[in-house]
Amino acid sequence: MLVLITYDVNTTTARGKKRLRQVSKKCLDYGQRVQNSVFECILDSAQLRKIKYELAEMIDMETDSLRFYNLGETYKTKVDHMGIKESYDMEGPLII
Amino acid sequence: MLVLITYDVNTTTARGKKRLRQVSKKCLDYGQRVQNSVFECILDSAQLRKIKYELAEMIDMETDSLRFYNLGETYKTKVDHMGIKESYDMEGPLII
Repeated sequence: MLVLITYDVNTTTARGKKRLRQVSKKCLDYGQRVQNSVFECILDSAQLRKIKYELAEMIDMETDSLRFYNLGETYKTKVDHMGIKESYDMEGPLII
Repeated sequence: MLVLITYDVNTTTARGKKRLRQVSKKCLDYGQRVQNSVFECILDSAQLRKIKYELAEMIDMETDSLRFYNLGETYKTKVDHMGIKESYDMEGPLII
């Protein structure tokens, strides 16, 4: 399934900036960045539980926020893009 | 249906900052801000077409990006939140 992960991390402190880098790095382990604070990840249920657990350990619950949107298996018709950086097909071949 | 609108607007210029304010204002006409650059809007098909048209007129297609995710009618089980600022129930009574 496609899971969209969006986050706001408080970066007014050095610790906040570090959390932001950690969250970004973790999300990139599971998916692609489509906007500055938006990641699209193809996950199964076990992976979703795992990333939620890992991210919950990283963020400061008092200042940061994370949201998870489950777009299911038939997500291709549910996503539309305008402007720069159209994302590539995550399940297709990666051409570099 | 619930439509998630996420955006990255290039704010390195004064014009970019103005576009960001315009995009934010327009999104707030249709929904609530749940994170800095993430809006959740309850829209019908006609409203979705309208907001897409309006936002497309505002952004710079060369530098900004907008993404639309359609979470359908049964979205309540598809959204999960961690950390600060849990959003309110958009279809419930608004208590101020």
